[in-house]
Amino acid sequence: MSLAEFEIIAKYFAAQAGERTDVALGIGDDAAVLDVDPDRKLVLAMDTIVAGVHFLEDADPFDIGYRALAVNLSDLAAMGAVPSWMALSLSMPAADERWLERFAAGLFELARAHDVHLIGGDTVRGPLVVTVQVGGWVENDRWLTRDGARAGDALFVSGVPGEAAAGLALLREHAASGAAVEHLRARFLRPEPRIALGRALRTRASAAMDISDGLLTDLHKLCAASGCGARLEVERLPVSPAASERFDEEAWLSFALGGGDDYELLFTIPAAHAAELDSKTLEGIGVCRIGVMTESRTVECFHRGQPFVPASTGYDHFAKP
Amino acid sequence: MSLAEFEIIAKYFAAQAGERTDVALGIGDDAAVLDVDPDRKLVLAMDTIVAGVHFLEDADPFDIGYRALAVNLSDLAAMGAVPSWMALSLSMPAADERWLERFAAGLFELARAHDVHLIGGDTVRGPLVVTVQVGGWVENDRWLTRDGARAGDALFVSGVPGEAAAGLALLREHAASGAAVEHLRARFLRPEPRIALGRALRTRASAAMDISDGLLTDLHKLCAASGCGARLEVERLPVSPAASERFDEEAWLSFALGGGDDYELLFTIPAAHAAELDSKTLEGIGVCRIGVMTESRTVECFHRGQPFVPASTGYDHFAKP
Repeated sequence: MSLAEFEIIAKYFAAQAGERTDVALGIGDDAAVLDVDPDRKLVLAMDTIVAGVHFLEDADPFDIGYRALAVNLSDLAAMGAVPSWMALSLSMPAADERWLERFAAGLFELARAHDVHLIGGDTVRGPLVVTVQVGGWVENDRWLTRDGARAGDALFVSGVPGEAAAGLALLREHAASGAAVEHLRARFLRPEPRIALGRALRTRASAAMDISDGLLTDLHKLCAASGCGARLEVERLPVSPAASERFDEEAWLSFALGGGDDYELLFTIPAAHAAELDSKTLEGIGVCRIGVMTESRTVECFHRGQPFVPASTGYDHFAKP
Repeated sequence: MSLAEFEIIAKYFAAQAGERTDVALGIGDDAAVLDVDPDRKLVLAMDTIVAGVHFLEDADPFDIGYRALAVNLSDLAAMGAVPSWMALSLSMPAADERWLERFAAGLFELARAHDVHLIGGDTVRGPLVVTVQVGGWVENDRWLTRDGARAGDALFVSGVPGEAAAGLALLREHAASGAAVEHLRARFLRPEPRIALGRALRTRASAAMDISDGLLTDLHKLCAASGCGARLEVERLPVSPAASERFDEEAWLSFALGGGDDYELLFTIPAAHAAELDSKTLEGIGVCRIGVMTESRTVECFHRGQPFVPASTGYDHFAKP
């Protein structure tokens, strides 16, 4: 019998996690929050990427190093935290110097951009699996979680979810270059952690998370954590001029709703403040109102007023085939 | 060209680690030490174990879960720290419920024994690779590092290094059970992190590290970090009654000097206090004086007064075959 990822975590790990008064927020959100300093909270995230699952087998090692850190910074962004240091665990089949040089270049390019210091880790022989753990800080009075959304809050997304999945599809088919193709590939290969946006949302959003497994899958998680539902207006999703050059609407909606890897932020804003933000930019990133939170405890999609059933709902590592 | 593990870390990672004032101790010791609280230091370790490298392919998942945490707690012991929480990254090929139940049982048995809380992590599909990150605390005034040994300090080891390697050899040859075999196998399968011993050494030892890659390999690392050498008296190594039932002296010395996996502590004591500790027990663990630190910057082995050349010097993940 195959379990979904959240069932594995709930059944085998969260149930036995233990109790400590210095753990302000444990398993179940984008990162853990620890009470270690009277003046601020420590935020810790740890994510693993695997060849053939999170990146293509023939990926440029630069992009692997970049991604290993980016996915973790994205978790800190979703908490409203500022990153501070990282630890790296690198399992690799051999010590290939060209590979290592490119990997380190990608890792540290992003690390320098966010002033993240490498404090240690482990280097072992094994299959190519990269784990990064990132630590950072958030103010005591307010950090972002998945569980604060309430019925009536407006549902927002940053950037253009779906472009990363479109870029991955183009990489897989070895599409010929061109401006649109380059743009979409870059969205997959170099996701930009929304740290500054997360900081700006810290005092504005009622709930937030990053989109890593697909908008709908992650929206379900946000709804479950918050004990509410959502009504998503599909025609409100941000449009991608680049993707519209290459894909029809059906393919695009499948990327936008089901494709992961965007590392954009999904967040909710109390109704009274929703209009101020709709279709604006915050910290240089477009944010877009795509729906409303409901009491229904389900996620309902509508397309131009009609109920809409998406073709793909997102990624689960251990879903039944 | 193949690089040794320490060369990889130095060339590609330590050189670009960055600078932050809140990092009291970065890459190169058993764990990192962070300045995050006026009253104490945060100690973070992260270690990865891989099937076929750190444990046998057919290992009981209980022992894999136990080991994934034990190797990290051992790093905290080597710093003199008290563990507090852990994050788990689990890459596994499928969600096998029997496997998960045994893995979690082993992980949490050790976690409960040390009051370690699971705060989060990641669960992904991939080859079997387990990374654990452990956080803990140590007093501001003193923590243990590898770099404090001085010529003239006495060299000590805890427990009986070599028993784990002997146990692994017996597991590999599927040796018939018996008290000696059971004892040695348990030393490999269930290493006991020396947390209490590390705490007792915090104010006594001039340097300390845990033995994971083999006594001689790790002694070289301690000497390099401290800028000194060591003279090791091989006949002073702790004896193993269990191993002597199964192995001749040559095989035993190869285990004791070159076999890793013991997770005992290797430490140095200023000469004036060495006699107080020699062949005593501290926190229930035998500690044994096995040599002396020297000015030579090399590690020399002697056996009953004669220079001794060991057959095996330890483990390096990326050593040339």
